Amino acid sequence: MREVFHQSLEDLQSQLVEIADLVTVSIDKATRSFATSDVELAEEVIADDAKIDALAVALDEQAIEILARQQPVARDLRVVVTALRVSASLERMGDMSEHIAQLARLRFPERAIPKGLKGTFTKMGELDVEISRTLSELLRTQDLKLADTIRNTDDDIDELHASVFEKVLSDNWKGEATATVDATLASRYHERFADHAVAVAKKVIYLATGDWRIEEEDIPLAIEQQQEFGHA
Amino acid sequence: MREVFHQSLEDLQSQLVEIADLVTVSIDKATRSFATSDVELAEEVIADDAKIDALAVALDEQAIEILARQQPVARDLRVVVTALRVSASLERMGDMSEHIAQLARLRFPERAIPKGLKGTFTKMGELDVEISRTLSELLRTQDLKLADTIRNTDDDIDELHASVFEKVLSDNWKGEATATVDATLASRYHERFADHAVAVAKKVIYLATGDWRIEEEDIPLAIEQQQEFGHA
Repeated sequence: MREVFHQSLEDLQSQLVEIADLVTVSIDKATRSFATSDVELAEEVIADDAKIDALAVALDEQAIEILARQQPVARDLRVVVTALRVSASLERMGDMSEHIAQLARLRFPERAIPKGLKGTFTKMGELDVEISRTLSELLRTQDLKLADTIRNTDDDIDELHASVFEKVLSDNWKGEATATVDATLASRYHERFADHAVAVAKKVIYLATGDWRIEEEDIPLAIEQQQEFGHA
Repeated sequence: MREVFHQSLEDLQSQLVEIADLVTVSIDKATRSFATSDVELAEEVIADDAKIDALAVALDEQAIEILARQQPVARDLRVVVTALRVSASLERMGDMSEHIAQLARLRFPERAIPKGLKGTFTKMGELDVEISRTLSELLRTQDLKLADTIRNTDDDIDELHASVFEKVLSDNWKGEATATVDATLASRYHERFADHAVAVAKKVIYLATGDWRIEEEDIPLAIEQQQEFGHA
């Protein structure tokens, strides 16, 4: 019975990793479709989002089934509750990726990236893929040092996000209203994607430490605690 | 023991209603601060968001405590899981409200609402308050007819959101890039607020019907089922 139970917890974890991997593929395709105006790639992203949503719903149902049948306590309970929360964030990350692809499709055959911002958005896209990959790895290994990496990448993405607004609001900006709207929305989606990754990282820290109230600045502390208790 | 248990479930529900009421106050102040460039009101919203966040965390901890101690099954389990999900959405609604207040503060003493959009944003703000009030009422009464009202209000807000983009992208738009950015972000926040309300309504329907996979177009069906089984 206990073995069946632990198997079902491990299943939950591997399903989360599976969803996170799909999210990485999705954001990779979405940001490339946006950067290169590849409408076919954008269509793929939009079509595949339903799969991410369905997997998230299936995972939630399984988590609730475990709560009902196995009535876990202590750390096991935290694993299940964390899975429910993480799946919600991963699903939202998939949505952000879909939004980016929709912008690419909306402007096709024109370029979706406003003039002068191609480098910035290409870099943001690469960092979004990187943060998503690190997140998968964090979910797979529970190695809290990766939470710190995620936070750093998020800081870099935030800087790029700020630089988009600086450019758009500068006197040199010659973009039409369409370009301004696109830059604003696209930058917001790229940045929100990373915010969700940070939110998931916090949930994984909760799992390791039992502390919900952890703030970003406490992540190094949580890593220290993990090492101290030999969970690393 | 059972009585203590049911008391704790009722406490969860009243805490959700309490948070939802605070969110309504917050969105009311935020949208008014944005529409009237009232920076003091905006500051209040920003300061009060921490309270909403803290209440959401407290509710989550209580829900997890109930799962651990009382090991609920069937409908009781759904009540607890739904509370966890609803609190996450309410917390995000508070964030949207804070974002709107931040825009108002950022532009002060200038007007945050771009020229020609005052009527639209005032109306969107009123509808956001309305949807938030209806949501509180839905959480209080579990009357699924209110979910339908929420969906209709969301449709109205979506139309206004679309009309902002129509205006901004029309040939008549004379706004500077700042105005375009502000209109884009503010409209997105007003619209996301309503999306979260719809998401909560779906979770309440799940509670009543046990069906996660309900789509917006199935809401009338769920209401019918509720009436059939005499839960209304």
